[in-house]
Amino acid sequence: MRVSVVGGGAVDESEYEQAREVGRVLAERGHTVVCGGRTGVMEAACRGARDVGGETIGILPGEDRRVANEYVTTPIATGLGNARNVLVVLNGDAAIAIDGSTGTLSEIAHALDTGRPVAGLGTHDVPGVEAVETPERAVEYVESSV
Amino acid sequence: MRVSVVGGGAVDESEYEQAREVGRVLAERGHTVVCGGRTGVMEAACRGARDVGGETIGILPGEDRRVANEYVTTPIATGLGNARNVLVVLNGDAAIAIDGSTGTLSEIAHALDTGRPVAGLGTHDVPGVEAVETPERAVEYVESSV
Amino acid sequence: MRVSVVGGGAVDESEYEQAREVGRVLAERGHTVVCGGRTGVMEAACRGARDVGGETIGILPGEDRRVANEYVTTPIATGLGNARNVLVVLNGDAAIAIDGSTGTLSEIAHALDTGRPVAGLGTHDVPGVEAVETPERAVEYVESSV
Amino acid sequence: MRVSVVGGGAVDESEYEQAREVGRVLAERGHTVVCGGRTGVMEAACRGARDVGGETIGILPGEDRRVANEYVTTPIATGLGNARNVLVVLNGDAAIAIDGSTGTLSEIAHALDTGRPVAGLGTHDVPGVEAVETPERAVEYVESSV
Repeated sequence: MRVSVVGGGAVDESEYEQAREVGRVLAERGHTVVCGGRTGVMEAACRGARDVGGETIGILPGEDRRVANEYVTTPIATGLGNARNVLVVLNGDAAIAIDGSTGTLSEIAHALDTGRPVAGLGTHDVPGVEAVETPERAVEYVESSV
Repeated sequence: MRVSVVGGGAVDESEYEQAREVGRVLAERGHTVVCGGRTGVMEAACRGARDVGGETIGILPGEDRRVANEYVTTPIATGLGNARNVLVVLNGDAAIAIDGSTGTLSEIAHALDTGRPVAGLGTHDVPGVEAVETPERAVEYVESSV
Repeated sequence: MRVSVVGGGAVDESEYEQAREVGRVLAERGHTVVCGGRTGVMEAACRGARDVGGETIGILPGEDRRVANEYVTTPIATGLGNARNVLVVLNGDAAIAIDGSTGTLSEIAHALDTGRPVAGLGTHDVPGVEAVETPERAVEYVESSV
Repeated sequence: MRVSVVGGGAVDESEYEQAREVGRVLAERGHTVVCGGRTGVMEAACRGARDVGGETIGILPGEDRRVANEYVTTPIATGLGNARNVLVVLNGDAAIAIDGSTGTLSEIAHALDTGRPVAGLGTHDVPGVEAVETPERAVEYVESSV
């Protein structure tokens, strides 16, 4: 399946490693990572997936697909600005949220609003988000909920 | 100024009256109500504004502007589905959130993400949202914050 | 009704006057001008409508509604870039195209694609567009076709 | 590179074969087909690319990526309706138009509007579109123009 990985564009090293592990576990289990295509959690999740040869889709706010991070295998330009957050979520069957600020909160909300299961790692405390402790648990949760 | 009023599409009578009062107070002070153009809080806020002759903009998810509630003076069709939530927020200088579920949460998040002040009446407990007790206080908060 | 007036963002004086006359005639007959909110034909049509006290809606590509031309009474920010062209057309019941380049051609195509009548004044020669000679004829055509 | 193949959703057998050949030639030369993900020219171009193991991206108007034709390797859901036409074009470096009606015309216009070269096979006669006779020539034109 496809899993949207959403989170902060600027993260510290431990969050980056956590996101990378999420990407790696998803790809090892045959899932495709969908994300916003930029830095921080987005880059880390794509990088983790690429570490094990997985596929990654980066849905970008701007019109130029060349600004995607280097671990995105299929960049998609939208030119929609913040409205692209909705497309990041629409293109996954579930979402995993890591850290993040208000942009991430909007993605969590859109995911829940469209009935997608959401696992959270150190992210917003929103009813409906399953708070988990590890990347493995995040992936298990979304696998069991779709 | 313009104020986006966001909230549940299905509300009980007391929430409806609260939203109507928000619309009325906004219009009395010369502000325009921006909303999603449909039912519940959206309708109530527009209705309150119209009670005192105010202007209301309804930004709709679908392609047909004729489905706007009857209190919308300027309906805008988008055909964007959920992505129209972003436009509801972009077209206000601040937001007032009343009740609401995950759709409302996405609008709160987009508002905060773009630096707009948000007052909350019985809505999601999100850092950055100013929880207030009355419609008057909601309007005073956004007036003092823009 | 609402009529989308589409055309070049940079026009010469005679095209500007033609667009202004289109706006004036539309407003005199009680119609609202919808446009892209910027310069050239968009500005001229709004200006003509305002000359006689009409209403004008400007649907902008960017996120800041304050960049609308001064004759727009209801600016709508979208942040959608070129995709806002679709919304310009969706918010009219018919379209009048004046001069214009490929952006205008996209709006003509979207209008025809959604079944809206289109009158053309010195614009692209596209099957389905009614080529007319004067602003009055353009308005009469769309009035008779909706 | 990526090439957007745009055209009618309902085509006759000869147009279908022409579009399939366009997809095949593109994929043989290492290019990725981008399209609207549905029937007719879109399906044929993807099918041709898949005949020789190529990659295909289908950018859909709706929210459900599962309605893409079976030859799309990466379906992208948008929920944007007609506004997705803009994204079809944005995600290619050039476009090839085959037959088609007003929806196709809008894509041609958006492609030209953003400076992309467009080759046309039996499609709209628009200034800036290079009319060609064969799929091979269409591909050669876009290759030489990017």
